[in-house]
Amino acid sequence: MKILQEKIRQEGFIKGHDILKVDNFLNHQLDIDFLNQIGQEFKARFTGQEITKILTIEASGIAIAAITAQYFHVPVLFAKKTESRNLEEDTYNSEIYSYTREKSYKIRVSKKYLNQNDKILIIDDFLAQGKAVMGLYDIIKQAQAKLVGVGIVIEKGFQDGGQILRAQDIWVESLAIIKNMEVGQIVFG
Amino acid sequence: MKILQEKIRQEGFIKGHDILKVDNFLNHQLDIDFLNQIGQEFKARFTGQEITKILTIEASGIAIAAITAQYFHVPVLFAKKTESRNLEEDTYNSEIYSYTREKSYKIRVSKKYLNQNDKILIIDDFLAQGKAVMGLYDIIKQAQAKLVGVGIVIEKGFQDGGQILRAQDIWVESLAIIKNMEVGQIVFG
Repeated sequence: MKILQEKIRQEGFIKGHDILKVDNFLNHQLDIDFLNQIGQEFKARFTGQEITKILTIEASGIAIAAITAQYFHVPVLFAKKTESRNLEEDTYNSEIYSYTREKSYKIRVSKKYLNQNDKILIIDDFLAQGKAVMGLYDIIKQAQAKLVGVGIVIEKGFQDGGQILRAQDIWVESLAIIKNMEVGQIVFG
Repeated sequence: MKILQEKIRQEGFIKGHDILKVDNFLNHQLDIDFLNQIGQEFKARFTGQEITKILTIEASGIAIAAITAQYFHVPVLFAKKTESRNLEEDTYNSEIYSYTREKSYKIRVSKKYLNQNDKILIIDDFLAQGKAVMGLYDIIKQAQAKLVGVGIVIEKGFQDGGQILRAQDIWVESLAIIKNMEVGQIVFG
């Protein structure tokens, strides 16, 4: 997606050797018109597919999933990360290791909202090592639902996630794939 | 907002003496068509106001703010809750006590995205004791931005938040105000 590549080049910046910050439009401030273009592009990539629900993970996936869901006319379900006394006890659980935060965290989805009739599109902001998607896929399998595909805004092609998922025959559509990056230079694949 | 009251009656349920769970459409699963109706209603309530940005707080405010922002044609900015090495150091900070979680947490907004020219609409899912809104307002004041108003989906009218905010001349629009609630009965004000 050309316009996304341009936006990453113009508004993103690189921190350390592997962190790309896109707080200007995707992870802190949200460019809503641009998220609509992203949503339309996901719809185009998965056109004709039967999808009953979009699944994402709090917090940075929520806005992308909500805007995208308008083009699929389905509800969004977001996995919760924290132990909250406000969440149902009856949940599917999985555990995700976050390289960014350098620790594992639990994700939970209420059993009420996911079942064997669901055909799921996973939407998330980044794909790096693939741990978040694998955690969501684990929950989809527990619910005996079907994973139709995975829509990612930015894939770090220099990390393993995309390869690991595609090797399991998971349909992954990434709107921008970064082949490699260093300060002042981002190469898309 | 009549349709919201009906949805709360039909799909919400009460836990303990003060927790209203609306995971079916607002806090876990997201009814996107309905969120659009909410966004349109916020636009109607604040029509004619100059607003440059919508400010909310992760995670449950994000979807509502993102969908609502489509009607105001402005970006969303969401305050982050967690210590993450991915967030800028240069931030406005505040602290919020959560009665639901029974502990305080920090919120942070990058100084890049909020300044004295901003006219802010705060959007959030619930208003109970008003602590989240006060934390966001604190950050708005630090940035010398202007708070135009506060749009809340569900106000717990039997708690103090609404009164505290309105006593400070803050313009609060709540789409549903619950006067009191017990299992089997929700009374709107």
